[in-house]
Amino acid sequence: MPELPESPELTLPVKVYFYDTDAGGVVHNVAYLRMIEQVRSDLAEHLNWPLGDMVSERSDCPVVYRTEIDYVRAAKLGDDLVIEAKLVKIERVRMTFEFRMLRRPGDEVIVKCRQILVPVDLQSGRPRPMPTHWAEKWPELVGSR
Amino acid sequence: MPELPESPELTLPVKVYFYDTDAGGVVHNVAYLRMIEQVRSDLAEHLNWPLGDMVSERSDCPVVYRTEIDYVRAAKLGDDLVIEAKLVKIERVRMTFEFRMLRRPGDEVIVKCRQILVPVDLQSGRPRPMPTHWAEKWPELVGSR
Amino acid sequence: MPELPESPELTLPVKVYFYDTDAGGVVHNVAYLRMIEQVRSDLAEHLNWPLGDMVSERSDCPVVYRTEIDYVRAAKLGDDLVIEAKLVKIERVRMTFEFRMLRRPGDEVIVKCRQILVPVDLQSGRPRPMPTHWAEKWPELVGSR
Amino acid sequence: MPELPESPELTLPVKVYFYDTDAGGVVHNVAYLRMIEQVRSDLAEHLNWPLGDMVSERSDCPVVYRTEIDYVRAAKLGDDLVIEAKLVKIERVRMTFEFRMLRRPGDEVIVKCRQILVPVDLQSGRPRPMPTHWAEKWPELVGSR
Repeated sequence: MPELPESPELTLPVKVYFYDTDAGGVVHNVAYLRMIEQVRSDLAEHLNWPLGDMVSERSDCPVVYRTEIDYVRAAKLGDDLVIEAKLVKIERVRMTFEFRMLRRPGDEVIVKCRQILVPVDLQSGRPRPMPTHWAEKWPELVGSR
Repeated sequence: MPELPESPELTLPVKVYFYDTDAGGVVHNVAYLRMIEQVRSDLAEHLNWPLGDMVSERSDCPVVYRTEIDYVRAAKLGDDLVIEAKLVKIERVRMTFEFRMLRRPGDEVIVKCRQILVPVDLQSGRPRPMPTHWAEKWPELVGSR
Repeated sequence: MPELPESPELTLPVKVYFYDTDAGGVVHNVAYLRMIEQVRSDLAEHLNWPLGDMVSERSDCPVVYRTEIDYVRAAKLGDDLVIEAKLVKIERVRMTFEFRMLRRPGDEVIVKCRQILVPVDLQSGRPRPMPTHWAEKWPELVGSR
Repeated sequence: MPELPESPELTLPVKVYFYDTDAGGVVHNVAYLRMIEQVRSDLAEHLNWPLGDMVSERSDCPVVYRTEIDYVRAAKLGDDLVIEAKLVKIERVRMTFEFRMLRRPGDEVIVKCRQILVPVDLQSGRPRPMPTHWAEKWPELVGSR
């Protein structure tokens, strides 16, 4: 297995297209969550949990269990933004991520979001224990926060 | 099996919500196709092909093979529209549907669409023959049009 | 203006289509929020705040300020569900809604959600005071909860 | 104005996320059109028609007038794909684009698509003449094909 990065976080660019906006002239509230899922999936791959594995027999599938999202400022068509994504907590059957969307690193926040995910066995639909290599790599995140 | 209706067609209301619109102030081109899929699925159920069966072992899954769509007029937030959906052709491994979106029956057309679907075995990904009861009920649609 | 209903709540059916599901075989976490928006918009119209007005000069536009959503059970393709929507709190510049998605009234909860919305002037992007007729009709919701 | 590229085409990577897939286990037919819009918008910017201008007073807004799309093979969760986008025809009030989605350049085609767009004045909703600098740069595309 490839080595894990020093820190379980990632900052990636996202751009606002027509399909992200609505008749109010700004990005639609649901579209932000698709952008966040994009970056969360890329972070998971960065942490050696590839998307393709999530629906195969090699792995359980991480399922969103709770989302909290605050819409602080509006983004607009054509905006070039970044999303900062971070794994912040590892529990026995769940993991917590935090996200901030900004115009650029260090800038004012557009959206803040926190998501809890649970590994699920897709056959049975039941929660499954977290894989152990994340907890071993980042023990400071275990059960804490 | 419940009896098939006299005619393989259905007219259903659809309504325009914020998530259907974009920053141009009108319905987004992709959103019309979601509305059309909604009515196509309801027509399929009306013709005894329930959605739940489409991913089970009781049935093959109809997969879109081609879409043609003409955007004639713009729909707007809050519009109450109807979609007329009709099965127009049955071939050995495919079926063709036609759709018109209107403000109300008899009114000017907003969108016209034609879709070809193919029954697919989800395990193998291969095309499968059409079920025969539609062809028996509406022989005038077979291979014609 | 038409009269307001006795109680600021509404229960409406929603159905699960292919576009709501993902490769995990269940409804995608973001799709639930589109269904909730549909019912929230219908509730707003039921309370005399029509969608068409929300982007016109007759009214400010309610914008989502915060969403909390808990995914308790999974819904599947073809499911016929209901969403119970309720206005639960009215403050000077914001309103709070609560939602529950169930298989049928009285049944086990699939999704629970809470949303805060703010009326916004679309020209300036600034928050605006809530219209007063809701507070007059349901004084028990004002600033409370 | 920045100089136009030699050739009005662009090949860009796209990746398949959970929100692109459906319960059939493959990419949903409507999701391909969102990916195509992403690449079409990036091509437009590459040809000096930035997204932000499309809803401002500096420019008319290109609106989709017709889409034809053929679904040849299925894409799956986690797939890394490319879309080749090309402007193929310029007429007085419309432009035609062609798209191919492939696993990688030179590979077998997953999806083929053709779209006609019309510049529209968002205030009046009326079609507007194409800007002239594309026709001057690529006269071989004018009214031809």
